[in-house]
Amino acid sequence: MKVEMIFVGTELLLGNTVNSNAAYLSEKCAALGLSCYFQTVVGDNEERLSEVVRTAMGRSDIILICGGLGPTQDDLTKETVAKVCGLELIENKEELEYIKDRMSKLTKKITENNWKQAMVPEGAITVHNPNGTAPGIIIEKDDKRIILMPGPPHEMESMFEDSIYPYLDSLTPATLVSRMIKICGVGESKAETMMLDLIDNQTNPTIATYAKDGEVHVRVSAMADSEKEAVKLIKPVVKELKSRFGAYIYSTQDDVTLEQVIVDLLRENELTLVTAESCTGGMVASRIVSVPGASEMFKEGFITYSNKAKRKYLGVKKGTLLKYGAVSEQTAREMAIGGCDTTKSDVCVAVTGLAGPDGGTDEIPVGRVYIGVCVCGSVLVRGFDFPGNRERVRMSAASKALALLRECLLDYFSQMTFGKDKRKKR
Amino acid sequence: MKVEMIFVGTELLLGNTVNSNAAYLSEKCAALGLSCYFQTVVGDNEERLSEVVRTAMGRSDIILICGGLGPTQDDLTKETVAKVCGLELIENKEELEYIKDRMSKLTKKITENNWKQAMVPEGAITVHNPNGTAPGIIIEKDDKRIILMPGPPHEMESMFEDSIYPYLDSLTPATLVSRMIKICGVGESKAETMMLDLIDNQTNPTIATYAKDGEVHVRVSAMADSEKEAVKLIKPVVKELKSRFGAYIYSTQDDVTLEQVIVDLLRENELTLVTAESCTGGMVASRIVSVPGASEMFKEGFITYSNKAKRKYLGVKKGTLLKYGAVSEQTAREMAIGGCDTTKSDVCVAVTGLAGPDGGTDEIPVGRVYIGVCVCGSVLVRGFDFPGNRERVRMSAASKALALLRECLLDYFSQMTFGKDKRKKR
Repeated sequence: MKVEMIFVGTELLLGNTVNSNAAYLSEKCAALGLSCYFQTVVGDNEERLSEVVRTAMGRSDIILICGGLGPTQDDLTKETVAKVCGLELIENKEELEYIKDRMSKLTKKITENNWKQAMVPEGAITVHNPNGTAPGIIIEKDDKRIILMPGPPHEMESMFEDSIYPYLDSLTPATLVSRMIKICGVGESKAETMMLDLIDNQTNPTIATYAKDGEVHVRVSAMADSEKEAVKLIKPVVKELKSRFGAYIYSTQDDVTLEQVIVDLLRENELTLVTAESCTGGMVASRIVSVPGASEMFKEGFITYSNKAKRKYLGVKKGTLLKYGAVSEQTAREMAIGGCDTTKSDVCVAVTGLAGPDGGTDEIPVGRVYIGVCVCGSVLVRGFDFPGNRERVRMSAASKALALLRECLLDYFSQMTFGKDKRKKR
Repeated sequence: MKVEMIFVGTELLLGNTVNSNAAYLSEKCAALGLSCYFQTVVGDNEERLSEVVRTAMGRSDIILICGGLGPTQDDLTKETVAKVCGLELIENKEELEYIKDRMSKLTKKITENNWKQAMVPEGAITVHNPNGTAPGIIIEKDDKRIILMPGPPHEMESMFEDSIYPYLDSLTPATLVSRMIKICGVGESKAETMMLDLIDNQTNPTIATYAKDGEVHVRVSAMADSEKEAVKLIKPVVKELKSRFGAYIYSTQDDVTLEQVIVDLLRENELTLVTAESCTGGMVASRIVSVPGASEMFKEGFITYSNKAKRKYLGVKKGTLLKYGAVSEQTAREMAIGGCDTTKSDVCVAVTGLAGPDGGTDEIPVGRVYIGVCVCGSVLVRGFDFPGNRERVRMSAASKALALLRECLLDYFSQMTFGKDKRKKR
């Protein structure tokens, strides 16, 4: 079935807002096995919106429309779509009660406009919106399905998850099953090359790759008459990907992040982490802290931007800084070891680099970053040359630091032949 | 003049990529005074792309098309548009030489496909692409202008700035002048309320607001026959906004960030900064480090996630933590003062809060954050209740910390009646 998306909002046409709803819905529809050929952004204007809706109804089976369901005069999506479909708007008592209840709880004055949101096209399915007052609407007309959702991403996303996704899923007779494979430590283009033959030959299952914050996410989806059959189709592809990417795969779950995996690894093994950052300036620590409950294994972190701070908090030797410079393998090594030593932590990840734009030399160009990881006394340091501007170099360095930290932890655990308790643990 | 945008790429329809080009171009076109009524995303498919281009040519004057100019077989934007316009593709010698030169420098093998990129529709203007091998193309057909640009944002953006923006500007007989006003420390909805009457009554100049990372950016644009006249139209509105927002305005320049302003303020006054972060876990420091040359005034920062770290590095008293807890005004105050004391820095910004999702109580709910700023001995602490999930609370806290830091610096400088040298500076 062909799906088409329409995003309504003058704020999108003015560039005030990035259309993140488009990427969200596109990924979800792809995961449902629905083909999307067109997406249109149009303003809050009856004539132009009518034109776009009519065009979509002429060429697609399912039309997802986002935005313009609010209480203000500008919001005219529902009215316009009802007119195009030749439907009257009638009051929905339940929604009316809900709006009254919600608004009074927020102790907000209920203006006349709010009642507008309880008006629903006759015969349409009303989809409750627990996060706002504008309900979603599903119109089934002939063999077309027109689905209206609110524009604010948190309202749209939870409504989609709870109600629209299952509805769309029920429209397709076949069962679609998909598996997510999350890869870190391999660049996007290298990852693509490593599975080009699989991507080129894909039909069912399909393989879609998503580059996200220095990681590569791969979704394998198969369509079949039953879940069992679909799983059977997916299995060999997932197995093949696992054998190709091995330990670079950090998770096969949709909602697990790299930082979550690291926090879990440390927590399970009762290890504490400290961060020692120069050019990333807190980015690595910030990603660790983004995991709820990280406080169990992450107690402190340093941003040692000056040489003096590197010496004072991490015990980097003056001679090392003089001889090799702050951006060197040696300094990264001493930062990682020193971070563990001065804080009596088990693990330290250290980053030192030249993010630019100035200061580059032939020997140490802009983009050069050294990352050191110390795990219970074992140290690994690697050097990188990241492309791009200051922000991109810093982002890449932080992502790579996390990937390397995970790699070192796994490596360390795999070598623990003498049992957990005898490690050089603090 | 009416502009319409078409974004070509199956990766957009699959949700692999967020369409950031759309927001970028929309904002630029709005700043040029061009009205955009439609934006369409379509895959790399000749039939569907032709349909979209024809529709656009039927209703708009300028059509901006992004993506699908690369060397692979999938890339067929140029071929399709040429066909729709009835133009032959002919080889452009200069582009051919450029591609040869660039590819050999990258020591990449030049495949047959690469030559495809030197083919240009007859009579079209070729726009050089210094960041890639696919040139931009401008087709002037009857009274329509069709502009093709590469899809990768860094290629598109620099080509747009250098060549397309001036070209579009030359098409409009009137002169458009715009001023940016960047506001921090005022929430989006409050800021909008504060200028609702100005926004409602806008015609020329127009007022557009953009919410960005806890800040509000306001662009005032006026169209007139001459620059002098346009400036005259803008002036009273800018003056009015300045009087309403006063010191909340941190810059009136497009390319200046809040962190840049803070770094400049500190540098000009020869003050050093230290950061002391708990729940933000390095976000504040990371934003400071994002400014090139921040190392002059930012030497070190602490992520004191545990109580022990707060005591050890910042000298927060055990009694304070016991009596008031880590998330308290008192702790934020001691963190800010201690940060200065232990590092002999002039200024410290400290953040402690409860980002959630767990741990909230009636007294200290999730979202509660205290921010303390110490400037040469003077301390200010403020408490906030930020809405949203863990990430949103942390982002809001970091943004507010920077806004508060700027506020305290300005306040301090304005009270320096006894001359620069007598401040309690380290």
